[in-house]
Amino acid sequence: MNDAKPQLGYIGLGIMGAPMAKNLLDAGHPMTVWNRTAAKAQPLIDAGATLADSPADVLTKGASIVFINVTDTPDVEAVLFGERGLASAAVAGTVIVDHSTISPDATRSFAERLAKQGVDFIDAPVSGGDTGAKNGTLSIMAGGRREALERVLPLLNIVGGKVAHLGAPGSGQACKACNQVAVVTALIGVCEALALAKQSGLDLDQVLEVVGGGAGASWQLSNLGPKIATADHAPGFMIDLVLKDLNIVLDTAKRQGLPLDAAAHVTSLFQQIAEQGGGRLGTQAIAKAVEAAGGFRFA
Amino acid sequence: MNDAKPQLGYIGLGIMGAPMAKNLLDAGHPMTVWNRTAAKAQPLIDAGATLADSPADVLTKGASIVFINVTDTPDVEAVLFGERGLASAAVAGTVIVDHSTISPDATRSFAERLAKQGVDFIDAPVSGGDTGAKNGTLSIMAGGRREALERVLPLLNIVGGKVAHLGAPGSGQACKACNQVAVVTALIGVCEALALAKQSGLDLDQVLEVVGGGAGASWQLSNLGPKIATADHAPGFMIDLVLKDLNIVLDTAKRQGLPLDAAAHVTSLFQQIAEQGGGRLGTQAIAKAVEAAGGFRFA
Repeated sequence: MNDAKPQLGYIGLGIMGAPMAKNLLDAGHPMTVWNRTAAKAQPLIDAGATLADSPADVLTKGASIVFINVTDTPDVEAVLFGERGLASAAVAGTVIVDHSTISPDATRSFAERLAKQGVDFIDAPVSGGDTGAKNGTLSIMAGGRREALERVLPLLNIVGGKVAHLGAPGSGQACKACNQVAVVTALIGVCEALALAKQSGLDLDQVLEVVGGGAGASWQLSNLGPKIATADHAPGFMIDLVLKDLNIVLDTAKRQGLPLDAAAHVTSLFQQIAEQGGGRLGTQAIAKAVEAAGGFRFA
Repeated sequence: MNDAKPQLGYIGLGIMGAPMAKNLLDAGHPMTVWNRTAAKAQPLIDAGATLADSPADVLTKGASIVFINVTDTPDVEAVLFGERGLASAAVAGTVIVDHSTISPDATRSFAERLAKQGVDFIDAPVSGGDTGAKNGTLSIMAGGRREALERVLPLLNIVGGKVAHLGAPGSGQACKACNQVAVVTALIGVCEALALAKQSGLDLDQVLEVVGGGAGASWQLSNLGPKIATADHAPGFMIDLVLKDLNIVLDTAKRQGLPLDAAAHVTSLFQQIAEQGGGRLGTQAIAKAVEAAGGFRFA
């Protein structure tokens, strides 16, 4: 290993990937990028990154550490094991860091397959949204071999404010699943509390302030409560994405024999909003399901 | 009105009432107290309060502002309108402040009946637990006539850190109902998140820290998450009391045509724990229902 900064690869330049890649590039790391829609790579190219024509090409152009930031389990599988995927070109010692939120079980299987070629696969899903991605303040939940994680830790510290190592491959994804359960149940609670407040004729701002000052306080209440009260359903974090995450949660829980009734209930409400064409609204649009059930409108 | 501090009455010297009355007494207010179990009044008597032999006697002994801090709607009704109740002795200008958490609808009715004798009834349920009661840092959600509230505001500021005036009689109780919805739904979310974490083999302390640093953060997670993880079910706030509150919530919501499915689900779990003899455990003991459904134990 020489003193130069390692050459990085970045695959998936969406709403999260683009600003995270930019922060790594701005820190002076040479970078090769690939995105399914090549046009989305242009701002990174303009900032000095090199364009690859496939995931494998990211490696053949010299990257030794590759970040993946795509949507779902099949997307990660395609980037890894599809035609001209990373596995077809990765040499022993390569580290692949997956920031996508995908299945913990699939993650373990991907890590095992890659380990056979001496390649480390680190699951590192994040929490903190596009604002956290821009500001480099994301919480990162990492699973994987400690030695490999330590090698990429300086890079994770550039894109995140906090990195937790939960354990073996898949444990970062498992922690993200837990995170999503806490998030969505708090959210439905805020919706139901505000529905009761609305139908009781209370001033919703006042209720949010008082409830937020006590045992009912939550990130969801402070951040999404005011949007629910004013029927502002712009994302933020999209319903389609949280639905994808919740299906992972419920699959994982089912295999563990856990019912998770509250999370399942919220999932059914998100499903309802998505089926009505609201999949690209923010998660707070779950309020529309509570409105429909109660026959009222927040605003 | 003379310059002397008004003589206060205090009815209900339980886990909340006793420290709240003590804070008023310590601020130099002459006080007459009554409690169903007279022995519980002794520490206040020792500190300088006068003992009354009925709610009405609190008034005949000179109190012009009376606080009530009892458990449920029928308890408040008995203190107000029962034999030797407050209504039998209250003169025009008396203000009654009810810190109990009871039905918003019953509160409106009590206020209307008392208004006929020129007596103000202010609903002022609190949030913040026995610690908040001791430290005088409670959040107080008040409903009632503004002029009457302003008269007692200096006293409320002694027992609470924050006083919100929500509007007409009953609106303080309505706000408390909303508060409880946000509280218990966040709590079941923390339970389910930790259940998933436990069954995924994660370190629960680490999960609480990471999840608590992001969009899953809540008062319930920070304060009750560690107790759930270690199966510490000591109260805190008792299941029997939150069940009483949730029945008020669901009654109120039903009359408004609101289903509140998540709050109803949590209510059924609390009911289950209470039926198994756990009514005097802390609210975090709802984790036992999640354990039973999943066939595992947190600790």
